[in-house]
Amino acid sequence: MSDYAIGVDLGGTNLRVAAVGADGNILARTVLETEVSRGRDEVINELCDAVTQISRQLAQAAQKSSVEANGALLGIGVGVPGLIDSETGMLLESPNLPGWNDYDVQGEIERRLQTSVILENDANVAALGELWLGAGRGMDSLCLYTLGTGVGGGLILQGRIWRGWNGMAGELGHVNVEPQGHACGCGSWGCLEQYASAKAVARMAGEALAGGADTELREVTNGALDSLAVYKSAMRGDPVAKKIFERVGRSLGKALAAMINGLNLPLYVVGGGVSAGWDAFAPAMFDEVRKRSFVYAGTTGRDGQALGGRQRSTRIVRARLGGDGGLFGAARLPMMGKALAGVSPAVSSPARPL
Amino acid sequence: MSDYAIGVDLGGTNLRVAAVGADGNILARTVLETEVSRGRDEVINELCDAVTQISRQLAQAAQKSSVEANGALLGIGVGVPGLIDSETGMLLESPNLPGWNDYDVQGEIERRLQTSVILENDANVAALGELWLGAGRGMDSLCLYTLGTGVGGGLILQGRIWRGWNGMAGELGHVNVEPQGHACGCGSWGCLEQYASAKAVARMAGEALAGGADTELREVTNGALDSLAVYKSAMRGDPVAKKIFERVGRSLGKALAAMINGLNLPLYVVGGGVSAGWDAFAPAMFDEVRKRSFVYAGTTGRDGQALGGRQRSTRIVRARLGGDGGLFGAARLPMMGKALAGVSPAVSSPARPL
Repeated sequence: MSDYAIGVDLGGTNLRVAAVGADGNILARTVLETEVSRGRDEVINELCDAVTQISRQLAQAAQKSSVEANGALLGIGVGVPGLIDSETGMLLESPNLPGWNDYDVQGEIERRLQTSVILENDANVAALGELWLGAGRGMDSLCLYTLGTGVGGGLILQGRIWRGWNGMAGELGHVNVEPQGHACGCGSWGCLEQYASAKAVARMAGEALAGGADTELREVTNGALDSLAVYKSAMRGDPVAKKIFERVGRSLGKALAAMINGLNLPLYVVGGGVSAGWDAFAPAMFDEVRKRSFVYAGTTGRDGQALGGRQRSTRIVRARLGGDGGLFGAARLPMMGKALAGVSPAVSSPARPL
Repeated sequence: MSDYAIGVDLGGTNLRVAAVGADGNILARTVLETEVSRGRDEVINELCDAVTQISRQLAQAAQKSSVEANGALLGIGVGVPGLIDSETGMLLESPNLPGWNDYDVQGEIERRLQTSVILENDANVAALGELWLGAGRGMDSLCLYTLGTGVGGGLILQGRIWRGWNGMAGELGHVNVEPQGHACGCGSWGCLEQYASAKAVARMAGEALAGGADTELREVTNGALDSLAVYKSAMRGDPVAKKIFERVGRSLGKALAAMINGLNLPLYVVGGGVSAGWDAFAPAMFDEVRKRSFVYAGTTGRDGQALGGRQRSTRIVRARLGGDGGLFGAARLPMMGKALAGVSPAVSSPARPL
């Protein structure tokens, strides 16, 4: 058996733990509900129990198959939603984990399990997972959008997580797509998150109904009017539902165009629950990107000559690992080592005042 | 005398050449008009003559001062407007240098001068110059906007030029700021370039006059209605001119917010001719960035608690090197060496089709 690492994906509702071999195979896994309300100590207890249990499972499986002995445990990687101090492993802020602000998650797990732990932002580990085993296999840079309840993002530049100066890079859900658009929780208006998240899809459906639109969505019972219901309706040809997903696509296309123009990466990956609606939003997304990005158009044929025959197309694709991207990415962290996993820009002297 | 390099800033109208010491001091310099109409061979001749002349000047100065002998020439760095293949040094495309497409600029200069040459995009070298000796001194990452006739951009990540996959990174002038805005030469509408370039300022002034606006700009003779005239008028309090520069600021703020949310760099620098109007556009720019960027606001006080006391503000400042940024950056290239100067994301396997 090859060496392995344990990946933990600690979300606001689920706690997923898996032992992953250096070859990318899952050796054992478990999913628990995260009972956030019981407090952080309880959640950390459950997390540590789950890791211990996974390790035991692994030892038993190795005994049964009576083939090789287990490889070495390379460490534990933990993906959490929130802002992390990558130097200390402190969780500085997490809207989804109330009461966890300024909590030394990494140190606490290390103390309990006596193993080295690497803490990382959940969108960043999902991006790393896609690079390692998903849509970005074989590439060294990509940008991931996660269209979930909100919209998150992760950047991998030359094989390493780009955390940014304060660990706040990849806030792609708050890129503006409608200058005078819908108010966002961040304090701005018209952020991508207000048009491309699951919450936004449901909100836009509600707005259409309130406006008296003629749509089969009216027959969906109110509580079930979620992004999946709207997607299914769009695929059945309902014009209102189609229009909502077109708006998802146009908004995402605008946001993507800005990053493509700025970074010129080879690959942009769209994941998260809403990405299941790919067929309904992708045509509008591609149309918008072609119009809005000089760079995208220049690498995909509109002006192919410009590259002197070097046809290296910018690609925008769906994520491949579904909900497991974060789990794989978390397990990948200890395999890469802390120093290699992520980078942040630095100052070699104190910042001067403005 | 310390070792030195020769920097060349080859623009559509000027050819600037300087010998720059490893300590950043200019040892000799010259500026010529670029007579683009005489053809690329003639321009390359003039460029090589200017380099030879600078070298001679340097040798004479060293003799006269009779102090130390010259240091070693580390190489020649050349900044050009356009898309470059960084592996071969080919200029693939340059709207400002007609007839230069697919021209081996680097190889041609190397053949003539028998010295190693590094070719790089002009906005990229300007960004490198600002990092080395300008607004970014002591930092290792920054994003530069050049507000000139058009709007360009350059990214330095961890001390190195970020070229992107096809050398097209930093097309920051084509980030969308008005979804239904003014048509842009790139094929899109409402690009930053249509609101924050010198050409855009003059156009907006013309639009205001055509619309019958009550403004002192009406007294400016038509040919002289450039961005400087509008800036001066704004600083004298003309409401129409002030509004134009407010639009410059709002547009730039929106574009900046997207990059700040995405990359979370410590520093964003605004250069180019229009940056002389900083006093007129900066207030609106900062206002917009504070509203539009979760990350900026989070690092500059709106929600300072969020960073657990780590007050590392994102800074947006004017470029410090004026028109010399490109010259210094070009000279810096051979000092860093080709491999260190720039990086591009790569694929370790051929890209798969969609």
